[in-house]
Amino acid sequence: MTTSTTFLGLGAMGSALATAAIAGGRPTVVWNRTAHRAEALAGRGATVAATVAEAIAGDGVIVVCLFDHESVHGVLDPVAAGLPGRTVINLTTTTPNESRDFATWAAERGVTLLDGAIMAVPEMIGSPGSAILYSGSPTAFAQHRALRDLWGTSSFLGTDAGMASLHDMAMLAGMYTMFAGFLHGAAMVGAAGVPAAEFAQRQAPFLAAMVGQLAGLAATIDAKDYTGDGQQSLRFTETALATLLRATDEQGVDPVVLEPVHDVVRRQIAAGHGEDGTARIFEELRSTR
Amino acid sequence: MTTSTTFLGLGAMGSALATAAIAGGRPTVVWNRTAHRAEALAGRGATVAATVAEAIAGDGVIVVCLFDHESVHGVLDPVAAGLPGRTVINLTTTTPNESRDFATWAAERGVTLLDGAIMAVPEMIGSPGSAILYSGSPTAFAQHRALRDLWGTSSFLGTDAGMASLHDMAMLAGMYTMFAGFLHGAAMVGAAGVPAAEFAQRQAPFLAAMVGQLAGLAATIDAKDYTGDGQQSLRFTETALATLLRATDEQGVDPVVLEPVHDVVRRQIAAGHGEDGTARIFEELRSTR
Ligand SMILES: NC(=O)c1ccc[n+]([C@@H]2O[C@H](COP(=O)([O-])OP(=O)(O)OC[C@H]3O[C@@H](n4cnc5c(N)ncnc54)[C@H](OP(=O)(O)O)[C@@H]3O)[C@@H](O)[C@H]2O)c1
Ligand SMILES: NC(=O)c1ccc[n+]([C@@H]2O[C@H](COP(=O)([O-])OP(=O)(O)OC[C@H]3O[C@@H](n4cnc5c(N)ncnc54)[C@H](OP(=O)(O)O)[C@@H]3O)[C@@H](O)[C@H]2O)c1
Repeated sequence: MTTSTTFLGLGAMGSALATAAIAGGRPTVVWNRTAHRAEALAGRGATVAATVAEAIAGDGVIVVCLFDHESVHGVLDPVAAGLPGRTVINLTTTTPNESRDFATWAAERGVTLLDGAIMAVPEMIGSPGSAILYSGSPTAFAQHRALRDLWGTSSFLGTDAGMASLHDMAMLAGMYTMFAGFLHGAAMVGAAGVPAAEFAQRQAPFLAAMVGQLAGLAATIDAKDYTGDGQQSLRFTETALATLLRATDEQGVDPVVLEPVHDVVRRQIAAGHGEDGTARIFEELRSTR
Repeated sequence: MTTSTTFLGLGAMGSALATAAIAGGRPTVVWNRTAHRAEALAGRGATVAATVAEAIAGDGVIVVCLFDHESVHGVLDPVAAGLPGRTVINLTTTTPNESRDFATWAAERGVTLLDGAIMAVPEMIGSPGSAILYSGSPTAFAQHRALRDLWGTSSFLGTDAGMASLHDMAMLAGMYTMFAGFLHGAAMVGAAGVPAAEFAQRQAPFLAAMVGQLAGLAATIDAKDYTGDGQQSLRFTETALATLLRATDEQGVDPVVLEPVHDVVRRQIAAGHGEDGTARIFEELRSTR
């Protein structure tokens, strides 16, 4: 018998991962709670398992892509007796601590865990733009390179199983705030009759250029010196944000996503740091535990 | 007498604009409230005027780059009698309505106004990366092309003098929220000992790629149809943001810049739009006046 790759969870993402494995010529066993979602993959050549126990009956790697941390336990806890010695690649989105809890659970049962975080949408799986972060077992990472390469570009972030999730979450913070800020701007110009598409054409290259500032902000943070030359001061930023909030009000736009940025800047100025660089917002947000 | 270009306001930005004019070989007259800031420019060949009246005594274009709307009036109101027939390029940052008020003030005094918004820092003036938006008089825009070209790339956004400021402000909304989101993410990984510079190296290309999503969000908004295929649903976004906020809490990071994004998503879901695309955040923010 050839070693098969098992996929548990055939939502949009699980199906994309399994499809890439099949396209890569791998014998593939699939299972989903709601059976009909397995049909398309059966048509492509996957073996459909009726139960989780049946799906993991072989000796190949088990790829898990379910809704959340709880559903992973819901699916794996009942079959834990069949898992010692096996490798699980868990691509379900979880928090760092949930990934660490699952790593402990796996270690206690003799399961090798590679935790992954997918920085892509299902349509991107298998294309060069698809990036997947991994952490946990370096052995599993090395061993399953051929499989990983069918999905996209991989990075290994260390043996702490929480690191992939942590980086995933931290990067999404920048993405969602950027999207919200763009929609805020589109609402501002929209109130003056400017189509969002016209605004996006100006905004996209500007934001792409401003991404170039992140390395400088980061260097300031790591140096723990916010006083250096060439930094935009918190006082300057406060004036700009105050003007921006007045303009937001003029256009009748809800300031809800922008006001807290102004607030953290003002808190740092109140603490006596007005002449320091704007990267100091980091000090206002970071853990004080 | 050769026609000179007059600069009122020699802060960091005014000085950069005047320096570029001098480097471009233009006879230049400069004035600043605090006289010593004119010294460096005098050394480069500028004529220093002792008063505003003296600075505008010629017949050339008057470039204004002061702190804010009030300081522009503070400087120009007393010399208004000398302004009829003249052209003013106002590069001071103002709100759209402040620009419109100033356009009315100028029109009433027979002054031709070109309002500008500088999307650059002083060090960038004169380089190709320096972008300046203009609105107001198309005649003045056409006439002063040679001067504009010394500063950077120009765009003309229409005869409504408020449009340059409006686009400026709308674009800064995306920039400041992106910076705040990046600093939030840096604080998250920082709590696990990851240097900000290492995080920036991952975050920068990811955000640059995500900028590619803006055109799609904009097309959805303009079509006023949030139900189309391939859109990330509000419900999906809500789950992602909830996980992200749990991870934020695990790392001890202040959720203040991210929570409102989650809130607007939840408000739209509560209004019955959970299966619609995430671009619908626009509807939550936009003017309902
Ligand atoms: N889609 C993306 O763009 C994307 C991007 C990055 C990461 N991810 C992550 O990938 C994972 C899957 O996402 P998806 O887009 O595939 O979601 P999805 O289409 O909603 O699929 C969810 C999957 O989880 C299963 N499931 C949910 N609750 C379950 C339970 N209690 N027991 C057993 N199975 C359960 C569902 O089974 P049923 O079919 O029976 O409901 C389905 O297979 C998530 O963690 C998501 O955050 C997705
Ligand atoms: N710096 C940037 O990165 C940047 C980028 C885009 C746009 N801008 C805009 O450019 C404008 C100037 O910025 P900046 O960086 O040059 O600021 P700055 O270095 O602080 O200079 C401010 C200028 O305004 C003058 N001023 C302030 N209040 C005045 C008053 N009541 N009467 C007369 N003069 C007054 C100051 O004169 P004194 O020397 O006498 O104080 C100085 O010339 C602002 O609107 C700013 O938003 C700047």
